[in-house]
Amino acid sequence: MGGPGKAKRGIPPKSDFNSWYPSIVEIAELVDKRYPIKGMDVWMPYGLRSMNLIDQLARREMARTGHDEFSFPLLVPEELLDKENRLVSRLKAAREAGIDPSEMRDEEEPSGFKKEVYWVTHGGENKLDAPMFLRPTSETPMYTMFSLWVRSHADLPLKTFQIVNTFRYETKQTRSFIRVREIHFFEAHTVHRDKQGADEQIEEDAEMVRRILHDLCLPSIVSKRPVWDTFPGAWYTKAADVVMPNGRTLQVATYHHYRDQWAEAFDLSYEDSDGSSKMCHQTTFGMSERLLGAVVGMHGDDNGLIMPPAIAPYQVILMPIAAHSDDRVTTAVEQISNQLTSAGIRTKIEDRAVSPGVKHYDWEIRGAPIRVEVGPRDISSGKCVVTLRTGGKSDESIEGISHNIAKLLDSVSGTLRKRAQKFYESLVHPLPVDPSDGRAISSDEIEDGVVYELAFDGNDSDAEALEHLTGLTLLGECDEPLTQEAPCAISGKLTTKRQHVARMY
Amino acid sequence: MGGPGKAKRGIPPKSDFNSWYPSIVEIAELVDKRYPIKGMDVWMPYGLRSMNLIDQLARREMARTGHDEFSFPLLVPEELLDKENRLVSRLKAAREAGIDPSEMRDEEEPSGFKKEVYWVTHGGENKLDAPMFLRPTSETPMYTMFSLWVRSHADLPLKTFQIVNTFRYETKQTRSFIRVREIHFFEAHTVHRDKQGADEQIEEDAEMVRRILHDLCLPSIVSKRPVWDTFPGAWYTKAADVVMPNGRTLQVATYHHYRDQWAEAFDLSYEDSDGSSKMCHQTTFGMSERLLGAVVGMHGDDNGLIMPPAIAPYQVILMPIAAHSDDRVTTAVEQISNQLTSAGIRTKIEDRAVSPGVKHYDWEIRGAPIRVEVGPRDISSGKCVVTLRTGGKSDESIEGISHNIAKLLDSVSGTLRKRAQKFYESLVHPLPVDPSDGRAISSDEIEDGVVYELAFDGNDSDAEALEHLTGLTLLGECDEPLTQEAPCAISGKLTTKRQHVARMY
Repeated sequence: MGGPGKAKRGIPPKSDFNSWYPSIVEIAELVDKRYPIKGMDVWMPYGLRSMNLIDQLARREMARTGHDEFSFPLLVPEELLDKENRLVSRLKAAREAGIDPSEMRDEEEPSGFKKEVYWVTHGGENKLDAPMFLRPTSETPMYTMFSLWVRSHADLPLKTFQIVNTFRYETKQTRSFIRVREIHFFEAHTVHRDKQGADEQIEEDAEMVRRILHDLCLPSIVSKRPVWDTFPGAWYTKAADVVMPNGRTLQVATYHHYRDQWAEAFDLSYEDSDGSSKMCHQTTFGMSERLLGAVVGMHGDDNGLIMPPAIAPYQVILMPIAAHSDDRVTTAVEQISNQLTSAGIRTKIEDRAVSPGVKHYDWEIRGAPIRVEVGPRDISSGKCVVTLRTGGKSDESIEGISHNIAKLLDSVSGTLRKRAQKFYESLVHPLPVDPSDGRAISSDEIEDGVVYELAFDGNDSDAEALEHLTGLTLLGECDEPLTQEAPCAISGKLTTKRQHVARMY
Repeated sequence: MGGPGKAKRGIPPKSDFNSWYPSIVEIAELVDKRYPIKGMDVWMPYGLRSMNLIDQLARREMARTGHDEFSFPLLVPEELLDKENRLVSRLKAAREAGIDPSEMRDEEEPSGFKKEVYWVTHGGENKLDAPMFLRPTSETPMYTMFSLWVRSHADLPLKTFQIVNTFRYETKQTRSFIRVREIHFFEAHTVHRDKQGADEQIEEDAEMVRRILHDLCLPSIVSKRPVWDTFPGAWYTKAADVVMPNGRTLQVATYHHYRDQWAEAFDLSYEDSDGSSKMCHQTTFGMSERLLGAVVGMHGDDNGLIMPPAIAPYQVILMPIAAHSDDRVTTAVEQISNQLTSAGIRTKIEDRAVSPGVKHYDWEIRGAPIRVEVGPRDISSGKCVVTLRTGGKSDESIEGISHNIAKLLDSVSGTLRKRAQKFYESLVHPLPVDPSDGRAISSDEIEDGVVYELAFDGNDSDAEALEHLTGLTLLGECDEPLTQEAPCAISGKLTTKRQHVARMY
C-alpha cells in the first residue's frame, strides 16, 4: 500500500492450503521472504503490528499474574550449554534405564542442543577463546543469573518473562511464522519453593493460554506430551496444538514442569524459613510467532486474511467517499475517527487517491474486521455503511457510532470462533476401530489431512505400534478426558484417556 | 525490590563519577552486569521499562513524521558486507586522493567493518557455506530489500525504522549503556528522489533529536563531524553529544546524509516521472541505549538516579501510611491511584511490608520524580504530602490531585533542564588562547574533565595540530555558530565556526 510491495493479485484458493499460506503472508504484507537467508523473513509494518498486538496480549497476562519483564543477552557461552547437556544426558539415560534420575552419574555425551544452534566463533578477525551460541531458548542464560538472585524463601516465587529473538539452525524446509530460523519468541521462566508452587504455576499458564487463544479465536487441543516428546530437562511438557486447514497440527504454546531437575545443574537452592537449604522447583512457558501463523491459517479465506479484532492492526477502516466534491465528508470522517479512537478502537482513515474498489480489495486481503464508508448521502441521512469482513453490511447512525462498532467487533470475534470450531470439528475424526473390540484397524482407513481422536492408555511400545499403524504422531494425553470409558485402541484396556494422532508441523 | 537484587547500600559520591556510574546502574536495578560475557548486561525490569519509554519517544516522533516500523533479520550474509566494503574503500581512497568518488574504481581492500562484527560460522556441527555476521547496524540488510521495493518515484520517499539488538565486537573496556557489545538500537533509514529530499530529512532528524533530548532534559552539542570521523559511506555525519559529569562527551544520536553514494553499491535506482532512471539519495538516523546512559549520568546525584518524568517507569510512588490501623488509607490510596492513572500518570502503590524509611530510600535511589504519602491525618484534612525527587515538599488536596501532580511533574522536568544546563555550562570552557592573536597556547592550560569551545576554521592538518596540542578530539563544526567573528585558534583566520574539543567516550 504505497512504498514497499503493493498488494499483488492472484491469491491461490484456500482449498489449496499449501499454496495459499505462503502466498497470503506476502500478499497481505505481513512479511517479505526475499531476504537472502532462508527462514529469516523481513517483518513488514502490517505483520509487525499484528505480532506486537499478540505480544501485548501476552504482556497483559504477565501483568495480571505478577511476572516481571527482563531482557537477557542473546549470546551464551558454550560452557553453560555443557551444564545443560550433562543434565539432559543424565535424565535421558535415567529414563531409558527406568530409574530415578537422581541415582545417575553425569554423562559427558553431547545432547542434541549443540546440533540445533548457531555458533559465533570469531569476533572481527580474532578466534574467540570460547565459542558462544545464539540462544534457542533461555534456560541457560537465565538460570545462570537466577542462581545469583535466589538466596532465601523470601525471594520466591520469582516470575520472569522476556520477548526476544531466538535462533534455531533449522535444516527442514522453512515456512513463515511456522518454521523459521530467527524466531520472535515469548518465554516465561519461574522459580518456586516446592513442587506445589510449580504445579500452581502450570495451572496459571494453562489459564493464560486459554485466554490468549480465546482472543485469537482459536480452538486448540491441550495435551501432556508423551515422555519421548518432553522438552529436554523437563519432568513433563504440556502443549496447545491448533489444527491447521491441511489437517496438520501446529504447536503454539508449551509449558514445562521442571520439578527440581534443573536446579542442581544451575545451583538453584534457597534457604527455607527453618534455615534448611532446599532445591528450587521451576517452570517454563513458551509461545512464538506461530500464534500469528495459526491466525493466518485458521481464519483466512479465498479473499485474504481475516484478522481477529484483538490483534487487527486496524480494527476499522474509514473510507471517505467523494470527499473531493463535498467538504462535509472529510469533516465527518475525522469526527467518526475521533469518536472511535477515544473509545480505544484502532482506526485508520483510508484516503489514498485510488478507487473505492481498490481500497475494498486491499483491506479485504489484509483482513481488517470492519470497513465504514462515509459519503455525502450518508452524512445527509446521519448514517454510514458498515461492512464486516466476516460477511454482512448494515447502516449505522454516525451519532454514538463507537458503541455499535464495539458490538460489531465482538460479533466478528464470535463469528470467527464459531467458524473455527466448526472447522476444527470437521478436521478431527474418531480413529477407525474394529466395532467388536474397539481396537485400531488397518491403516487403509487413515485419510490424509485428518487428526484422529482415540482412547489410548498404553505403554511406550503400544504408542510405537499406534504411530506405526497410522503413520501419524501421538500428541499425548488430552486435558479433556473422554466422557465415558472406552477400550484403548491398542491395548484394549478400558480408559477415559482421550488422545490424538496427527501429522505435526 | 523483592526478588532479584534488592537495593543495596553504599553509593559512591557522584563527584567520583567513574565509580558512581557503574555502581548506580546496578544499585538502582537498571541492569545486572554479572552475566558471564563482558559488555552484555541483563536488563532488569526497571531498566527495561525506562528504555522502553525512551523507545516510545522515538516511536512517537516516527509516527509524527510518517516513518513505518519494520524488523529485519539479525544475521547478514558475508557477501553483502563485501558490497559495503567496496563502497567504503572507494570513498576513502577518493577522499585521500582528493577527487570525486564517482571517478574511482572499486578497491578490494577490506575496510574496518570485518574487524568489528561477530561472525557466525557454524550451524550445529556444520560449517556454513558462507559465514554470516551479527548486524552492527542495518544498512546492508535493509538496502538489499530496498532495492526490491523501490521501482518508481511513486515509491518515494521510503521512510523506515526499526528498534532491534545490534552487536559490536568491542575490544575497549565496556560500560553499561555507553559501550556494550549487544546494543539496544534505534535506526531510521530513508530513501529519497534527490538530494533535496535527503536534505529535508536531515532537518527533520535534527528536529526529532531536539524534541527527544528536550523530553530527557538533556542539553547537547550538535556538530557536523570532521571528514575523518564521518560514518563510512556517508557524505557527512551530524551528531548530538551530551557532556557527562566527568567532562567526557557521549555521542547519543547521529544522522548521516548519504547523498547517492550507497545507491550504486546496492542498485538503488528508480524510474522518475519523465521515464529516466535515477539514483536514490539516502539518510540514516541512529540512537541507542546511550540515551539512558546520558540520563543516568547527567541527572543522578549522591542519593541515586533522578528520572525525567517522560521516561520514569513510575512517575508517582503512592505510599500508604499506617494502612493497618485505618481502613480509610487503602481506600484513599486506591482512589488517588485511579485518578492519576486515568490522567495518564504512571503510578505505583508502594505497599511492601517494610518501613516508610526503606520505601523512601529505595525510590530515592531509583529516582521516582514524585512520592505521595497518604496517612490517617491526611485523609481527615483532605490533603496528602507530596515530595519531589528534585527537592521540595508540599501539601496537596486529594480532590482533583491529578491536575496538580501533572504540574509538579512539569516542574521536575523544568528543574532538571535548568540544572543540566548549568552543569553543562560549568563543564564547557573557552579554549585558552593568546589574547594578542587568539591562537591556542600551550597544552599546560588544558584541564582534565573539561570540554573546550573554540573558533576553528582550519584544514585537516590544522585539526591534527589542534588535537595534538590539546590531547583532545575535535567534535566538528557546531550547529550554533559564534555570534561574532573570532580568529581560528590554529590558522588565525577570522571565522564564526564554533567547534569543540573533548575527550569522547
